[in-house]
Amino acid sequence: MINIAISAGGTSEPIDGIRKITNISTGSLGWHCLEAVFAYFTARSEKNFHIHYIHTENAIIKPLDKTDLQHVTFIPVTNAESVYQAVDKLTKEISIDYFIHSMAISDFTFSYAVNIHKLSEEIEALQKVGEFTDDHVRSLLENPQSKLSADEKISSDSDIIIGLKRTKKVMPLIKQNNPNTFLVGFKLLRDVSESKLLQVANQTAEKNSCNLVLANQLSAISETNHQGILIKNGEIIERAEGKKEIAKVIVEKMMK
Amino acid sequence: MINIAISAGGTSEPIDGIRKITNISTGSLGWHCLEAVFAYFTARSEKNFHIHYIHTENAIIKPLDKTDLQHVTFIPVTNAESVYQAVDKLTKEISIDYFIHSMAISDFTFSYAVNIHKLSEEIEALQKVGEFTDDHVRSLLENPQSKLSADEKISSDSDIIIGLKRTKKVMPLIKQNNPNTFLVGFKLLRDVSESKLLQVANQTAEKNSCNLVLANQLSAISETNHQGILIKNGEIIERAEGKKEIAKVIVEKMMK
Repeated sequence: MINIAISAGGTSEPIDGIRKITNISTGSLGWHCLEAVFAYFTARSEKNFHIHYIHTENAIIKPLDKTDLQHVTFIPVTNAESVYQAVDKLTKEISIDYFIHSMAISDFTFSYAVNIHKLSEEIEALQKVGEFTDDHVRSLLENPQSKLSADEKISSDSDIIIGLKRTKKVMPLIKQNNPNTFLVGFKLLRDVSESKLLQVANQTAEKNSCNLVLANQLSAISETNHQGILIKNGEIIERAEGKKEIAKVIVEKMMK
Repeated sequence: MINIAISAGGTSEPIDGIRKITNISTGSLGWHCLEAVFAYFTARSEKNFHIHYIHTENAIIKPLDKTDLQHVTFIPVTNAESVYQAVDKLTKEISIDYFIHSMAISDFTFSYAVNIHKLSEEIEALQKVGEFTDDHVRSLLENPQSKLSADEKISSDSDIIIGLKRTKKVMPLIKQNNPNTFLVGFKLLRDVSESKLLQVANQTAEKNSCNLVLANQLSAISETNHQGILIKNGEIIERAEGKKEIAKVIVEKMMK
């Protein structure tokens, strides 16, 4: 049995039960990868495969016929923490052969919101105990006393300051839990030169032991147009245009 | 000609081109209101009406037949500022008879993001010029020198602090531009008592000269269940359950 994991969509980090931090990802590239996997195996009359499709609520999911559905397990997730838990569980339980990690996972989660006036007063009060260091300020900014309580809807009476803390990185988990998994990573940047994009994509590949990285940049993405560069061992091995073509190239290079 | 404006959906405030602040609104209640308006006029064989449907990108829009489509103008918007401009333009150009303002508009828009370490250093440096006040801190927090440049994708190297500034209120525009418009406002709170909900809904009604306010709270909303209280002149005039029923009650009370 060939086990393939695909992650798709963008996570959502709740702020106060009404507001949330999301991102522009639609999950479209992930779904194209699923379709490309089906096309690949159908062309080879191979039926001994299973896709574990980890997706956020807003990720595009198209109808599949009954036969195809038997090859897919859907794993719904919400915020970055839930992706971490889901990927950890999946990769510990099942020996994943290929992992296409296209999901856009928030680097940050909501920590607190605070009225700008109250925070200013709290910082001003640091002077009362004498001279203070930037470490004192940082401690205060990490967890101000004047922050709104967690179950309060944020009032629009004044400007606010929001603290965001980093989420746990999901990508390193994949190879940690199973060093033999073939890992395809993605790197999206905005408005950088191709050499800078390649440099950052290579860093991502090295840090997470990706076998392939699809590098793309925001300025080159639109609904119908999407330019991607496929990188292996620091070298460009293919360029592709359009999400469907990118997905096809990823799956073919991954499988061979 | 009877002119009806309906606003629906939740606005989206961009953070850095990839991340954004959104809210949980789906625009479903707004669409039910549109359908309830059609039902109301169809039952009375009235064809002399037009609906101006102001909606965000993510708001639910269902197919309408050709005849119905002639009665609707769709006005797409994105962030709070674009809603302000669209509503101002519409209500200046057209004498709106009824305005159902169900859109969830962000109270805040993104101002800046800053690395927590850099901001701490900048605040610490306030001491160099001697004693400082909370006003000095507030000025700094409104616009820190160490903030990331607007076109930079936020790096996940450290925790960050985000400054949010208030957006312009849209609801007061409606009666300012046309005092004769019949205005239906909405107030969503979370986990408050009914008396508190009524109190806040009445404040909203008074501040914006709403003729009707639909008060609801988050804990009483789910996909299939949605409890609403319709308020007129500070009194509960109707309770309704389910978005379809709420929309029907709003339209009937509004038209009579």
